[in-house]
Amino acid sequence: MDKQTFSCIENYMLTCMNDGAHDEQHIYRVLYSALDIASEYTVDMDVLIAASLLHDIGREAQFRDSKIDHAIVGSEMAYEYMKSLKWSEEKAHHVKDSIRTHRFRKNEEPTSVEAKILFDADKLDVTGTLGIARTIAYKGIVSEPLYSIDEFGNVLDGSNDSAASFFQEYNFKLKNVYEKFYTNRAKIIAEERRKASIDFYQSMLNEVKAIHIIGKERLESVFE
Amino acid sequence: MDKQTFSCIENYMLTCMNDGAHDEQHIYRVLYSALDIASEYTVDMDVLIAASLLHDIGREAQFRDSKIDHAIVGSEMAYEYMKSLKWSEEKAHHVKDSIRTHRFRKNEEPTSVEAKILFDADKLDVTGTLGIARTIAYKGIVSEPLYSIDEFGNVLDGSNDSAASFFQEYNFKLKNVYEKFYTNRAKIIAEERRKASIDFYQSMLNEVKAIHIIGKERLESVFE
Repeated sequence: MDKQTFSCIENYMLTCMNDGAHDEQHIYRVLYSALDIASEYTVDMDVLIAASLLHDIGREAQFRDSKIDHAIVGSEMAYEYMKSLKWSEEKAHHVKDSIRTHRFRKNEEPTSVEAKILFDADKLDVTGTLGIARTIAYKGIVSEPLYSIDEFGNVLDGSNDSAASFFQEYNFKLKNVYEKFYTNRAKIIAEERRKASIDFYQSMLNEVKAIHIIGKERLESVFE
Repeated sequence: MDKQTFSCIENYMLTCMNDGAHDEQHIYRVLYSALDIASEYTVDMDVLIAASLLHDIGREAQFRDSKIDHAIVGSEMAYEYMKSLKWSEEKAHHVKDSIRTHRFRKNEEPTSVEAKILFDADKLDVTGTLGIARTIAYKGIVSEPLYSIDEFGNVLDGSNDSAASFFQEYNFKLKNVYEKFYTNRAKIIAEERRKASIDFYQSMLNEVKAIHIIGKERLESVFE
C-alpha cells in the first residue's frame, strides 16, 4: 500500500467516527497491533491495513440503534468504499469478510489469516490496562457505575451481578479474553499485559470494600 | 444524628445529583472515609455527616456553567437546607464553611477539624485505583482522550502536555495528591493505595508506547 491510499482510507475512517477522543486512538492501536502480529505471517497488507482502519466504521450506526451489529454494517460500508477506490472484487470482499468476523461475541469465526489477525489485534485492546481504561471510559459515557451495591449496602465484586458496571464487565469479559486468540504473537502480548489488569481490579475491589465495611460500621455506631 | 435526619439529608443530596452512577457512589465513599478518619478526633458528627453528604450538591450548577465554583454554590445551598431543617445558625454555618473549603485548588484552607476531615476524605477519592477510575470515567463523559500524540505520532506521557487527557491529569493532579492531607489517618490510607495508582499509569504508558513504536516502524516499512 502506498501512503496516498493509506491517507484516503484513513480520512474516510475519520469521517465515520463518532467519539473522536476514544474511538480514533483505538483504531490506530488495532492497526499497529495488527502490523506487529502480521510480521510472523505472510499476509495481504492492503487487506489487513484497510480492514484494520475500517473495522469500527459501523459503530455510529450501532450507537444510534443497538439492534444493529456494527461488524455487519461496517463490513458493508467498507466493501462499498473499497469498490469506490477501484479495488478488485476479491480484495474488497476480503476486507468485508475480515470486518464482519472481528467481533468478540460473533458465532461466525474469522477464517483468513488477515481476518484472524484483525480479530486478535482488536481483542488485544481489551487486555491489560488499556482494556481497563477503555471499559471505564465507556462506563462514563453511558452513565453506568464502577460497581454495584446490594440491598444491604455491600459492594458486589461483579462475578454474579446482573446490573452493568465496570466490575461486572471485568468478570464477564475482560478477564476471559486471554484464552481467545488465534495467533501466538497476540497470546504472548496479552499474557505480558494480564497481571496489570488483574492487579488493578483486585486493588480497586479491596479499596472499595474496605471503605464500605469500615464506613457502614461507623455509621451504625453513630445511629446507636 | 438519628436515622431520620440522615435520610432527610441523604434524599436531598440525591435530588441534587446529576450523574447518578458516578457522583452518588463518590458521596458515600467520602462519607465513609470521613467517618473512618473521624474516629481519631473529637468531632461534631452532625456537621461532619451533613457536610460530607452535601459537599458536591453544587456540581450540577458548575457543570452547566464552568465559571461557577461548586464548592461556593454548594455551601450556600447546604446552609439554606440546614436552616430549613431548623439547625442552629452555628451548625448551619459550620456545614457551609466545611463545604466551601473542600476543594483541591482553593486558596482558602479548611480550618475546623470537620472541614479538614471532609477535605481529606474527598481527596482520598483521588488516590489509588479509585482516583484512576474516576478520572478515566470523567474523560469518557467529557470526550477527552486517554493520552495525547505529538505531531510525529509519538505518545506523550502527560508530564508536559497542555492538552487535557488521562495521562496529563495523572501527572498534574493524581500523582501529587499524596502530600496534601491534613490528617494522619488519611495520609496512611493514601500511602496504602499509592503503589496501585503508580503501577497502573506506568503499565498503561508502557503498553501504549510499545504499540505505537512497533506499529509506526512496521507501517513505514510497508510504505517503503
